[in-house]
Amino acid sequence: MDQVWSTYKEILEEAEEQIRKGVDSEVDLINKVAHYILNSGGKRIRPLLLIICAHLSDFSNKNQMLIAGGIVEFIHTATLLHDDVIDNAEIRRGIPPARRLWGNQASILVGDYLYTLAVCQAVKMENLEINYLLSSTCRKMSEGEALQLSHNNDFNLTEAVYLQIIEYKTASLLSASCRLGGIISNASNEKKEALSRFGRNLGMAFQVADDTLDYIADRRRLGKSLGKDLKEGKITLPLLHLLQNCTVAERKKLKKLMLGDKFLQKNLKEVIGLMEKHGSIAYAIQRAQDFINRAKSDLSIFKDSIHRQSMMTVADYVIRRDH
Amino acid sequence: MDQVWSTYKEILEEAEEQIRKGVDSEVDLINKVAHYILNSGGKRIRPLLLIICAHLSDFSNKNQMLIAGGIVEFIHTATLLHDDVIDNAEIRRGIPPARRLWGNQASILVGDYLYTLAVCQAVKMENLEINYLLSSTCRKMSEGEALQLSHNNDFNLTEAVYLQIIEYKTASLLSASCRLGGIISNASNEKKEALSRFGRNLGMAFQVADDTLDYIADRRRLGKSLGKDLKEGKITLPLLHLLQNCTVAERKKLKKLMLGDKFLQKNLKEVIGLMEKHGSIAYAIQRAQDFINRAKSDLSIFKDSIHRQSMMTVADYVIRRDH
Repeated sequence: MDQVWSTYKEILEEAEEQIRKGVDSEVDLINKVAHYILNSGGKRIRPLLLIICAHLSDFSNKNQMLIAGGIVEFIHTATLLHDDVIDNAEIRRGIPPARRLWGNQASILVGDYLYTLAVCQAVKMENLEINYLLSSTCRKMSEGEALQLSHNNDFNLTEAVYLQIIEYKTASLLSASCRLGGIISNASNEKKEALSRFGRNLGMAFQVADDTLDYIADRRRLGKSLGKDLKEGKITLPLLHLLQNCTVAERKKLKKLMLGDKFLQKNLKEVIGLMEKHGSIAYAIQRAQDFINRAKSDLSIFKDSIHRQSMMTVADYVIRRDH
Repeated sequence: MDQVWSTYKEILEEAEEQIRKGVDSEVDLINKVAHYILNSGGKRIRPLLLIICAHLSDFSNKNQMLIAGGIVEFIHTATLLHDDVIDNAEIRRGIPPARRLWGNQASILVGDYLYTLAVCQAVKMENLEINYLLSSTCRKMSEGEALQLSHNNDFNLTEAVYLQIIEYKTASLLSASCRLGGIISNASNEKKEALSRFGRNLGMAFQVADDTLDYIADRRRLGKSLGKDLKEGKITLPLLHLLQNCTVAERKKLKKLMLGDKFLQKNLKEVIGLMEKHGSIAYAIQRAQDFINRAKSDLSIFKDSIHRQSMMTVADYVIRRDH
């Protein structure tokens, strides 16, 4: 992956500058909170994908690419601010989230600001295709989050609904980021479709991997507490698999653990033990890998190049556990 | 005002249908929460103003008018959902706010959804002028809310900053609603500017009046608790006037009351007593009336008609205490 970062180093620095300059409110509080979260260690995966996809299709308009890269990062950051309030997050990327420093109220409002900033910049691009794509993507993202909330502690959640949740809340923006790269470089419809599919499959893989890491990661590396989803009643793929494959007695016990007043580390250990027994972690890892394989095959219509190679590398990277 | 409602009765019913049909998510929770707040007694002042302004300029496209009316109401409703979370509201329009029934998480997410829905519909209008106006308006609204938050319990808040806060958070959307009516009916730039100014002045008046009612209204009529702003440390025009015109000893006492742990009804009575002594309520009411007078004079470039008369009536209505 280091190779990929260095290939696009200069353009990524310009994208970074675009993001930094973009936050320019008359309200100090907004600038402080927005810069804090934007500089809190995010990897800029969405702008990176947009940039690679634009290169893959022989991009011509660097300025549009930089603006679009900023827009997808602002949208992503807006959702992080709201997510942290919704999840009562105590830590993000190893540091306190904005809500711990400025409160929930500021996090909600600065999230709103970043989203409206993204819309302002999208409108200024004066490109209908881009505006249709971004607006429908944002709507899907809010629907995915609401769908997830409405299935909290739902022990009968199906894999199909779980996949819809992660497609809407996560994969849609990664898909849009890739497609935007294609739109900006006037790619054919066939290529834009391939980029959308690549981004969606990569996003699905990323979220499944992230959900799995919540059970098995090394705490320091993850930068957040283990077992967070379990604690919040969020049923993700490993747990979903376990609930469907465990014995009736185990299922009863799992429900009791999850609905109990207190969340204990020994409960988490017990759940992980059951997941290992029933192959739930291995199943989820395999599903993430399947999505990555599909993402890679989506790239087959592009001729081999350093950019296609970079996309392959990013695909492998997003499901690795050490980032 | 009854005369105004009946003049536009049919078109308002169509606008209502547009709003009702617009909320059509795949996620049940979203539809439930959105319909609840949309049907909780809002007066549709923004769609009404848009419709009257479109008629004032000989509107030609009814469909666009209905869609735009829905958009401004969705934006307004999105801010209500977020405001109620931010203010920890216990009551809105005499009934429990959505956050009391579905929780803060759902209120945040459905607010996000309604805002993204508005953006989707705005993009579909395929009109750049409308999209520029709406996106910059939404950005201002989020900045106004953040500016207000950052001046919570700021005893040195100036009237200029207070006016900026209410212009951004409230008047900007009323101004945009009026201007949208002009845009849809292809009004001249001069007329669009006049409509913007009218909406802004009306919005300023409305917010000043609303802030004043928080101290003097009849609880049942207001549909929310009296003294809410004082309780939250929100410094609005009557209090701002009092802080600047009271004695040093009174100011010291006011600070102590506001920063105390408990909010007591007798504190509110004491504050209102001081406001009466120093003419703060009368001052705020006069300021609201000044804005309404300016709003009315903004209409002078339009020839007299039933629609111009309706605008005058709405202007008087928004600062009356019994709505």
